[in-house]
Amino acid sequence: MELAQELLEIITDPSRISTNLTIREQHGQDVSYHLPKLPDVVVYPQDKQEVSKILQFANERAIPVIPFGVGSSLEGHIIPAQGGITIDMTLMNQIIEIRPEDFLVKAQPGVTRNQLNKALQAYGLFFPVDPGADATIGGMAATNASGTNAVRYGVMRDQVKGLEVVLADGTVIHTGGMSMKSSAGYNLTGLFVGSEGTLGVFTEITLKVYGIPETTIAARAVFPDIGTATQAATAIISSGVAIGKVELVDDFTIDAVNQYKGTAYEPLPTLFLEFSGHKASVDEESSLVKEILQSEGCVNIQFEKDSKARAQLWEARHQVAMAILAKAPGKRLMSTDVCVPLSQLPGALVQARQILSSYQLVAGLLGHVGDGNYHASILIDPNDMHEVENAEIAHEEIVRYALGCGGTCTGEHGVGMGKKQYLSEEHGAEAVAVMKLIKGSLDPKRILNPGKILS
Amino acid sequence: MELAQELLEIITDPSRISTNLTIREQHGQDVSYHLPKLPDVVVYPQDKQEVSKILQFANERAIPVIPFGVGSSLEGHIIPAQGGITIDMTLMNQIIEIRPEDFLVKAQPGVTRNQLNKALQAYGLFFPVDPGADATIGGMAATNASGTNAVRYGVMRDQVKGLEVVLADGTVIHTGGMSMKSSAGYNLTGLFVGSEGTLGVFTEITLKVYGIPETTIAARAVFPDIGTATQAATAIISSGVAIGKVELVDDFTIDAVNQYKGTAYEPLPTLFLEFSGHKASVDEESSLVKEILQSEGCVNIQFEKDSKARAQLWEARHQVAMAILAKAPGKRLMSTDVCVPLSQLPGALVQARQILSSYQLVAGLLGHVGDGNYHASILIDPNDMHEVENAEIAHEEIVRYALGCGGTCTGEHGVGMGKKQYLSEEHGAEAVAVMKLIKGSLDPKRILNPGKILS
Ligand SMILES: Cc1cc2nc3c(=O)[nH]c(=O)nc-3n(C[C@H](O)[C@H](O)[C@H](O)COP(=O)(O)OP(=O)(O)OC[C@H]3O[C@@H](n4cnc5c(N)ncnc54)[C@H](O)[C@@H]3O)c2cc1C
Ligand SMILES: Cc1cc2nc3c(=O)[nH]c(=O)nc-3n(C[C@H](O)[C@H](O)[C@H](O)COP(=O)(O)OP(=O)(O)OC[C@H]3O[C@@H](n4cnc5c(N)ncnc54)[C@H](O)[C@@H]3O)c2cc1C
Repeated sequence: MELAQELLEIITDPSRISTNLTIREQHGQDVSYHLPKLPDVVVYPQDKQEVSKILQFANERAIPVIPFGVGSSLEGHIIPAQGGITIDMTLMNQIIEIRPEDFLVKAQPGVTRNQLNKALQAYGLFFPVDPGADATIGGMAATNASGTNAVRYGVMRDQVKGLEVVLADGTVIHTGGMSMKSSAGYNLTGLFVGSEGTLGVFTEITLKVYGIPETTIAARAVFPDIGTATQAATAIISSGVAIGKVELVDDFTIDAVNQYKGTAYEPLPTLFLEFSGHKASVDEESSLVKEILQSEGCVNIQFEKDSKARAQLWEARHQVAMAILAKAPGKRLMSTDVCVPLSQLPGALVQARQILSSYQLVAGLLGHVGDGNYHASILIDPNDMHEVENAEIAHEEIVRYALGCGGTCTGEHGVGMGKKQYLSEEHGAEAVAVMKLIKGSLDPKRILNPGKILS
Repeated sequence: MELAQELLEIITDPSRISTNLTIREQHGQDVSYHLPKLPDVVVYPQDKQEVSKILQFANERAIPVIPFGVGSSLEGHIIPAQGGITIDMTLMNQIIEIRPEDFLVKAQPGVTRNQLNKALQAYGLFFPVDPGADATIGGMAATNASGTNAVRYGVMRDQVKGLEVVLADGTVIHTGGMSMKSSAGYNLTGLFVGSEGTLGVFTEITLKVYGIPETTIAARAVFPDIGTATQAATAIISSGVAIGKVELVDDFTIDAVNQYKGTAYEPLPTLFLEFSGHKASVDEESSLVKEILQSEGCVNIQFEKDSKARAQLWEARHQVAMAILAKAPGKRLMSTDVCVPLSQLPGALVQARQILSSYQLVAGLLGHVGDGNYHASILIDPNDMHEVENAEIAHEEIVRYALGCGGTCTGEHGVGMGKKQYLSEEHGAEAVAVMKLIKGSLDPKRILNPGKILS
């Protein structure tokens, strides 16, 4: 209460400061199994000056500050582990400048990816990074998010050309710029991307955008088992085809989607694919891929050129998380997110299914398999200690398998609270010590999203 | 001498420690106008343990250490500004592992790009980053180098998936890994890439590699003036064609090449282009580009499909630096390296030529124009104070123009000693202060390549 009173001197508009319980609850948990914890107060800044003043204030008093987009992250990223001030960025949602000739856009962090794409459409442009939720570009930059388009266009870090960042003490800095490349000093942009709100608050983001492809074809390819399906995906990538998307959905999840959406897909492991570009290359690529799929044991292929049919097909893929959750109302998600070198992916998926079975866990397997990235979406009751423990052990085994073959514990979701324990195993204690040095030098009082990434 | 004696206890082989004047001279200057300065001693480590021990030794005594590849960098990067130990990495030139199914290679930093490509060829693979010199991958990673392929494949930072780095105090860390993407903690790999030997010494590098394209076509397109040529290049990029290369060489430089190589190209601004990929798309792209070139005022186009003719055509482009230097024997190079948003490039090049003329400087203009990156290669006598001063003023005006339109002072060469003065102007004093914090926390005694990037 006192805190809110003090913040009122910075954000002079009382409607943009809240201690309301419902609001605090909305800012105290995500859809994952991580137990909620409430912020003391939620503020909604309107510009970088306000963000700067809030941080200066919090830094002087050593009060934790948690930047917040729409809270769709999956590892307790936005849970105020030590209470404090949640800075909700959603009022900072202006698209500042679209530069079609330079394939660049400058926007505030609260802009969501759908909002951005709507604005870009008029210019024949689009932004490719597409996590399943309608996340903010600020949250996406802070988690180094990706999605179905990463195999073709790369991840958030490949798109962010520049940032305006408010540091822990309120200092505003600018990183990067508008040129396509630069070797001018340390790559601060790339360091802040993926820092999960622990190094600074983004108040402006410059992103690369792309021309909407001339032609797009979607396809759905059904396989007898998950090993064969994954093997086919890796064969496509190895062939050098510039595929647009290649997503794996396992039999359990197809079944969940059928129940949730009333569809009637064969309940078998399925690849959802997309080809896009100029017509001649799309035709060449899709027929090449058809051959590969067939020789890799695909039992049914369906191609869709029509935009409505394509949308319908992808709708199935986009609803998987909700469909899995609908399987067991009241349960919550623990999502593994390992990423392995491509050659190791078929083995990793087969192994993952075995691990999940051996702990009697109910889980879907799905993946951005063109990148070697997949998720086991495990359904758990956060209050059932036995189930949570089993899921944690299974998660650990899945991660250990991935690390054993040169992979990572998190391909796109980030570390948050849930993957901290794997960081030293992945990078070694010495590299984690370097991360801590950087954190300590930029946020000596450790006010920025404490308890995330580093212990 | 005493220093060499002490180092002998680490590198027990006297043939790998040198205080010979010729050797020190080779390690005391680059091809640029920066005045030479000699290291006290040059060592040639054979493994990371030796590198680690050298750094530990140097750190305890606060002796400067300068990592050295083949010294082809262009901004005094390898000049021992404060003397000390130069660590020549060329004996660490093993290719450790090629993983064709994962499109990855692990190699030691002394491997050169030609050596790497020779080894990859057997697998149908290649490494795209191609600075004009046969540089080491360690030096290329440390400068975030690029070259003619960046427009298609990206720069060094896009290729480096992981690093083994020896820190100032001798600690060995590992960053990144072998998966295509990761959100596991701070992006240390991206921070070390481009750090110019000031944050650590790379002892192992994991790189992305690519399948050799099925078909390649080269082209040479001649224009009446530099504005038109650049405008044509930007029109190609805007069209969304996935061009392989698009390089600009101005009339002065074409003339220099004709003299140097005995060729007879029209002495007019010329674009050198390359298309590569599957046959259908290469044919589609090259005919689309032909149309664009013609409608943008191209006066002559020559296409080459045959590999020998293509090589001959690109030979002209690859020899430009040497050809320019041959114009004035005894003079040395000052190379500007700005990169601007694409829409600003035609204006920037026209302006650059005006600036160079107004200071009576002899210079070629050439550029990786698909990225918005170009060089004015200015011929100067380092001992002619007046000429050096004029060149510095012209350089400053070129940089200021680039920064004024959102560009960078260095697109690929890096900061070294020559571009330090522009860093604050480009990023702001606050961002440079963050770079200094990072430097200070990783190298508190400032032994690593002192006097480079930061003052
Ligand atoms: C159904 C579903 C599907 C998903 N699919 C994918 C997927 O395919 N790929 C993928 O990568 N992710 C996926 N996610 C996860 C999630 O959408 C991403 O992590 C996304 O990037 C989070 O964005 P957000 O706006 O919700 O950020 P939040 O969850 O609000 O915040 C995420 C992190 O970013 C920080 N942050 C937010 N804004 C800022 C800012 N302005 N400055 C600094 N730090 C900030 C926060 O402190 C926090 O640490 C999915 C989530 C759901 C629910
Ligand atoms: C004719 C010519 C054409 C060129 N064309 C291009 C071009 O098109 N694009 C481009 O980007 N550059 C170009 N360059 C510049 C140069 O080739 C690049 O900067 C290259 O990356 C330098 O590699 P190197 O092995 O020579 O490194 P060096 O010059 O030896 O070192 C460069 C920097 O890297 C550091 N370093 C070297 N090895 C290590 C290591 N193992 N660990 C840590 N730090 C290390 C050094 O300390 C130094 O700061 C050109 C140069 C010439 C002479």
